[in-house]
Amino acid sequence: MAGEAPLQLRIFDLNCWAIRYLSKRRQERVQLIGDKLRREGFDLALLQEVWSEQDYSDLRAKLAACYPFSHYFRSGVIGSGLCVFSKFPILDTLLYQYSLNGYPYMLQHGDWFCGKSVGLLIIKISGILFNVYVTHLHAEYCREKDAYLPHRLVQAWELAQFIRHTSKAADVVLLGGDLNMHPEDVGIRLLRGWTGLQDAFTEAECFEGCEDGCTLVPSNCFTVKAELLPFPLGIRIDYILYKAVSNFTVKCQELKTTQGTAPGVDIPFSDHEAVMATLHIHRQGQARGATTTTTDPKLVDVVTEARTEVEVGLRAARRQRYCRGRMAVLALLLLLLQAAAALGTLVGLGAGQPFPKLSFSLLAFLATGVLLLATTLHLFHTMEVKMLQGTEEQMRRVLRVLQERPSDG
Amino acid sequence: MAGEAPLQLRIFDLNCWAIRYLSKRRQERVQLIGDKLRREGFDLALLQEVWSEQDYSDLRAKLAACYPFSHYFRSGVIGSGLCVFSKFPILDTLLYQYSLNGYPYMLQHGDWFCGKSVGLLIIKISGILFNVYVTHLHAEYCREKDAYLPHRLVQAWELAQFIRHTSKAADVVLLGGDLNMHPEDVGIRLLRGWTGLQDAFTEAECFEGCEDGCTLVPSNCFTVKAELLPFPLGIRIDYILYKAVSNFTVKCQELKTTQGTAPGVDIPFSDHEAVMATLHIHRQGQARGATTTTTDPKLVDVVTEARTEVEVGLRAARRQRYCRGRMAVLALLLLLLQAAAALGTLVGLGAGQPFPKLSFSLLAFLATGVLLLATTLHLFHTMEVKMLQGTEEQMRRVLRVLQERPSDG
Repeated sequence: MAGEAPLQLRIFDLNCWAIRYLSKRRQERVQLIGDKLRREGFDLALLQEVWSEQDYSDLRAKLAACYPFSHYFRSGVIGSGLCVFSKFPILDTLLYQYSLNGYPYMLQHGDWFCGKSVGLLIIKISGILFNVYVTHLHAEYCREKDAYLPHRLVQAWELAQFIRHTSKAADVVLLGGDLNMHPEDVGIRLLRGWTGLQDAFTEAECFEGCEDGCTLVPSNCFTVKAELLPFPLGIRIDYILYKAVSNFTVKCQELKTTQGTAPGVDIPFSDHEAVMATLHIHRQGQARGATTTTTDPKLVDVVTEARTEVEVGLRAARRQRYCRGRMAVLALLLLLLQAAAALGTLVGLGAGQPFPKLSFSLLAFLATGVLLLATTLHLFHTMEVKMLQGTEEQMRRVLRVLQERPSDG
Repeated sequence: MAGEAPLQLRIFDLNCWAIRYLSKRRQERVQLIGDKLRREGFDLALLQEVWSEQDYSDLRAKLAACYPFSHYFRSGVIGSGLCVFSKFPILDTLLYQYSLNGYPYMLQHGDWFCGKSVGLLIIKISGILFNVYVTHLHAEYCREKDAYLPHRLVQAWELAQFIRHTSKAADVVLLGGDLNMHPEDVGIRLLRGWTGLQDAFTEAECFEGCEDGCTLVPSNCFTVKAELLPFPLGIRIDYILYKAVSNFTVKCQELKTTQGTAPGVDIPFSDHEAVMATLHIHRQGQARGATTTTTDPKLVDVVTEARTEVEVGLRAARRQRYCRGRMAVLALLLLLLQAAAALGTLVGLGAGQPFPKLSFSLLAFLATGVLLLATTLHLFHTMEVKMLQGTEEQMRRVLRVLQERPSDG
């Protein structure tokens, strides 16, 4: 940063919805995203749901000239879907996998076998150390009866904890991603309160894009219209958040979203709209800017609210674990009964064949299937209970620390 | 820290080998460990392999008076097995799960369904901020033909990266745990080189305990003697490591290990010996003590060596993934053939029954089993390939950064 001139940083964030075999017109859209990034020359592009490594490689080849540095975060069987293109060297990376990885949903909702996680990149620009985080939190399936709220809270909490613990040496913290939460949701308030991150949309000096900054809008031809029925304007679930840690200040000069179709074609880039922020970073005299809001007195209320939700989830998870366990035991009993009957027939105790063979075999297959499924779900819910317990305990500890020392963030 | 008097810290570290139904005389030993901790009044006790939460609760109840603060790290289905007892308040915690969690070994080695991880605790003592890490890395199954060396290297690398990224604000870093690596192994050299951690055993001013500081010794009645045949003295795989990050120095005044049986009984505390360190922490004038050894010129060599091993593992994992995939395809083909034959018989194409029913069914069951197993292993090896690739890439990036700026840690 030469003299007192602020550093300007242009950031692009998009959930690319690039799932092989499932996402509509994927290759075409990845091309369009690449064209957009090359044309606009951002400083940083934070992408989510780039599930195919081939798509990443194609983008990398295309963008090599204007974004010489990039990283693809590998995790799980399919990957994390997270990748970053940068004009500036990436010094180091770290990936953190959330403890609740959406595995049970794969079975219940046709979700895929993915490892949801948050990626960290360390980037130095003009002597300023940036900790850049990119993530994709678990989707909400039904807002009215949101059984997964506790899970998203656990993820929001883990994300906040990971950012807090890894950003101590950073000058500026940036977070981009599909957080799958509305701006007023307790998870967002928890994340923002506990990390002190600010929302680029609310802080922006000027805004241009979809109304209310929405990133999932009914006018996008790829969105599921039924899901957006209660929200005629759409919803805002993709964010760019930031804060200055040491003696720097960050201002969001401009925020934009894409609006519907990409230029010159009849389709949008993704089912989400992209978020584009222009940030100005100033070095200031005194240490600790006004942006560190972790001492917010409302923080205790937010953590308490989140903790209550996690407790509700914990009770539900315990019930589910019990039900699945009972189902597994019943299926096992049925199988044992069948085995005894079959054995009886074999050693000639019964006269001829007491059961029709086909239905007998079908029943055995069914019981085996139920046993396997119920056992798997029982294990998943056991893990769920442990994770919710662990988070509840951490929140309790944080509340104790906050209440003892209210002025010490 | 009043005036210039050093802070003295006594640390206890033990792999407790407390696996329900599997570990011999578990409850008795957990009692003995509790007695020892209560009698000696350490400042910190870092325990591994406390797999049963009941054992943790029992210990907590017993130790409430002398260790008022404690934490059990929950992870995976069974848990992480990691817990900590402390005389000083635990301000915050964070758990990081390694990406390679030993799942494939569960199938191949009868290992259990555990989530290997590293736990971080933030503790403030006399105004000094401690980052305390406790972990348990994956075991070595066969030293001569160590197929899992690349996996332990990935874990050692992830551990080092996690410590580096989370300890930036700490005054003192402590790491205790069963690292399952010999002192001269490339994984230990990588961990120490990349974090700057020092080995309490080699730095100790005075030592008392098993020869060479070994923690897995043939004289312990619970150790598997065959595994220790090549090492008549035993092996040292449990460590207490430390470093001062800011203007502090840490010295290890005394290191001890337990030796065989606990006092008054005929059994030892565990199959591992406990490591007990007495550290002296001094505040010093100038910033950055001599303990930060991350600028070691040998570091490039160690990372290069580790990277080579990871590449070897990557090639092996790719081969395995291919073999499992081929096996799955063959099993599927066999099943399809059988289905066609059965269908043929049903619609009356064949004259009577061409196959004996029992062997036909058995073959179908066998093929299904092989299909499931091979598919699962294929998925595991896919994940393995991704993780090894990711680590190799990170190491390559670090090497580039190190070679460009050799004097900048």
